[in-house]
Amino acid sequence: MRIMSASQYDGKRSVDAGTREQQEAVKAILTSVRQQGDEALRYYTERFDRVLLQNFRVSEGEFAEASELVSSQVKAALEEAAENIWTFHERQVRQSWFTTKESGTLLGQLIRPLQRVGLYVPGGTAAYPSSVLMNAIPAKIAGVPEVVITTPPGADGKINPAILVAAQIAGVTEIYKVGGAQAIAALTYGTEQIKSVDKIVGPGNIFVALAKREVFGLVSIDMVAGPSEIAVIADETANPRYVAADLLSQAEHDPMSAAILVTTSQTLAEQVSQEVERQLADLPRKSIAEAAIRDYGAILLVADLEEGFAVINRIAPEHLEVMIAEPFEHLGKVENAGAIFLGPYSSEPVGDYFAGTNHVIPTNGTARFSSPLSVDDFIKKSSVVSYSKRDLRENGHKIVALAEQEGLSGHGRAILARLQDFETEEQEGEKR
Amino acid sequence: MRIMSASQYDGKRSVDAGTREQQEAVKAILTSVRQQGDEALRYYTERFDRVLLQNFRVSEGEFAEASELVSSQVKAALEEAAENIWTFHERQVRQSWFTTKESGTLLGQLIRPLQRVGLYVPGGTAAYPSSVLMNAIPAKIAGVPEVVITTPPGADGKINPAILVAAQIAGVTEIYKVGGAQAIAALTYGTEQIKSVDKIVGPGNIFVALAKREVFGLVSIDMVAGPSEIAVIADETANPRYVAADLLSQAEHDPMSAAILVTTSQTLAEQVSQEVERQLADLPRKSIAEAAIRDYGAILLVADLEEGFAVINRIAPEHLEVMIAEPFEHLGKVENAGAIFLGPYSSEPVGDYFAGTNHVIPTNGTARFSSPLSVDDFIKKSSVVSYSKRDLRENGHKIVALAEQEGLSGHGRAILARLQDFETEEQEGEKR
Repeated sequence: MRIMSASQYDGKRSVDAGTREQQEAVKAILTSVRQQGDEALRYYTERFDRVLLQNFRVSEGEFAEASELVSSQVKAALEEAAENIWTFHERQVRQSWFTTKESGTLLGQLIRPLQRVGLYVPGGTAAYPSSVLMNAIPAKIAGVPEVVITTPPGADGKINPAILVAAQIAGVTEIYKVGGAQAIAALTYGTEQIKSVDKIVGPGNIFVALAKREVFGLVSIDMVAGPSEIAVIADETANPRYVAADLLSQAEHDPMSAAILVTTSQTLAEQVSQEVERQLADLPRKSIAEAAIRDYGAILLVADLEEGFAVINRIAPEHLEVMIAEPFEHLGKVENAGAIFLGPYSSEPVGDYFAGTNHVIPTNGTARFSSPLSVDDFIKKSSVVSYSKRDLRENGHKIVALAEQEGLSGHGRAILARLQDFETEEQEGEKR
Repeated sequence: MRIMSASQYDGKRSVDAGTREQQEAVKAILTSVRQQGDEALRYYTERFDRVLLQNFRVSEGEFAEASELVSSQVKAALEEAAENIWTFHERQVRQSWFTTKESGTLLGQLIRPLQRVGLYVPGGTAAYPSSVLMNAIPAKIAGVPEVVITTPPGADGKINPAILVAAQIAGVTEIYKVGGAQAIAALTYGTEQIKSVDKIVGPGNIFVALAKREVFGLVSIDMVAGPSEIAVIADETANPRYVAADLLSQAEHDPMSAAILVTTSQTLAEQVSQEVERQLADLPRKSIAEAAIRDYGAILLVADLEEGFAVINRIAPEHLEVMIAEPFEHLGKVENAGAIFLGPYSSEPVGDYFAGTNHVIPTNGTARFSSPLSVDDFIKKSSVVSYSKRDLRENGHKIVALAEQEGLSGHGRAILARLQDFETEEQEGEKR
């Protein structure tokens, strides 16, 4: 792994915006599903997933079958993980609130769950039941009454059993065997068998990402996820074996994953570099991790932790591990990071699977302005205004002045309609 | 105003997605500013705003000049409005939090302000100082250290003085005279004079909207705002003059604004219809309001309030006025509405200018999944995980099982690196 000074590092990765052909293909799929509904879904599912389906919805029988195919060890671990995720995310729930004034006015904020949410789950070789938990549980806690999943079927017309087991654990029973841009279209426009949703979450390939970007505004979408990354900030107290293993755990995701060590210690830098080579040797996903380390891996030497955290904040990593003598003492220096793991035992996979925090985290520097998935992503807020007669009498003319200043006389007149009545009332009161 | 049964109403308005030419023009502007910085800004500002500027930043002298041009009445009203906005939004501030476990693990959520936010303020004939307050104050309360404004200059190279006064009241002093897609480009990529930002908020014309959509992901953006709308739900107790005036206050915004009355009372329906005609007659922005009422106005008769609120929830209006005998009793029926105004004195312009709630509210049905602008829009969250040795020893093998199930051995190995050390320690402990 290359070692360099922090100033030499330019960590830019370009996000795949898709080719013009891919963009046009996605637009065609969206239009076709919008116009032809299930018929279009059948066509694209046969074409891309090589299976012709009449009914897209997963049956009760299929859930039962899946349950038998997953080991009890994995099931138990998923259940315990779900419990931890539930416990952590429950703390994010917020209440509607209001404030009253002596003058009679009440202002507030009403918090409500979204009505219906669609979760896209990728198919293909790797199935990620943990992602089902991470996306579905916050929606359930928010109180979303209808959480549905779409996921591409295999050529046998089936869904990976671990996905179905995780869905059941998370309380999701409405699952459709549709993938790709056609699934995003179905969730946005609705078809005969699939009702449209208010929000679409979950990762996907370039076609799914392009489709989500295209329908953004018609429905809400979560972030457009890029390749994963990890940054570790470490001093001479860090264990090089742990650092190397954690860097590789992200590097194995994707050839475009980034794995970066920022350290004050030249010795650690060299040890980690060697450890990475050693551990790479027999890693099952070696070819992916090797490419990621080669193209997007780096060990950056810094003069002190001050400089180190400045580098971290520029990178704004999805995952940040802090392996220094006093991690809590330096937590306040972290401006930009999706998830922060402190100390030698907070290995990043702990957060991916089990601790309870969410593993859907902003990638590729977007932690500057985005946040991990949370209950907040499944609620909406409404302002509430109950303005009192006394306050309107007192303040009405100020509102009229502001409206007139902006050239919006109609706004002013709506207020004046009331103020005139108040005057009439007062005059009549005086007469009496 | 046309009266019909609710079932006859199809309130669809298509959002302007821009022509292919507009899209290409925006892409060209973005590229040009990214590559040529201020030089490109100068070129486009001369071309579109008809003024050649060397320095884009508004000077102290210009602030002082502006202050003298705005009446003390308007200034005082803006200051009081700002105070109300500040008071309401301060209640939205959230704290970082954490939870500890007896096992030694700590999990939490760190809440931090964005570092730098850009607020786009439209120029042209109408200037909206109230929008400056509504966008800037929540950012300030969130703790954003750098809030900047871009706004197109007039042909005289100046900015509307009320905008500058409102900016000063909100505490924003970094203002640049740049508008259109070129302003969005400058805020996204940065130029010699304008530093890039983390998030762009504020409304704009179609070029601004297209540019925001294009840079979405590189920076965060707020919602893409469509034309405004108001829905009033009213029973026979409502004052038809008030209802009509409030409908017109939104209709005057834009020929595509929607103004809808949902009522259980045939009498009120007819009275409001007549009142709208009467009040339209001498409305200064008559032509705009008339077109909006003709094309997107409707009075919908419903059998009862139950049906009425069902219609409202389908429309998911930006503004909802509830003018019925017992508004609070029915508040729980509102699922989808950006801002809810209760009772006869909560005329919608009260919220536009003065009450303290935000007037940046999701339009065109997006209240189904979006919320009014708030302090939440200017913060980001980071998960914090400090996992204890005891918990890792206890749960490590479950994490490995989940990682292996997903085919991510590198994730498992990161955990195993620690578990192996724990075993060695135990064996050594036993030997001793």
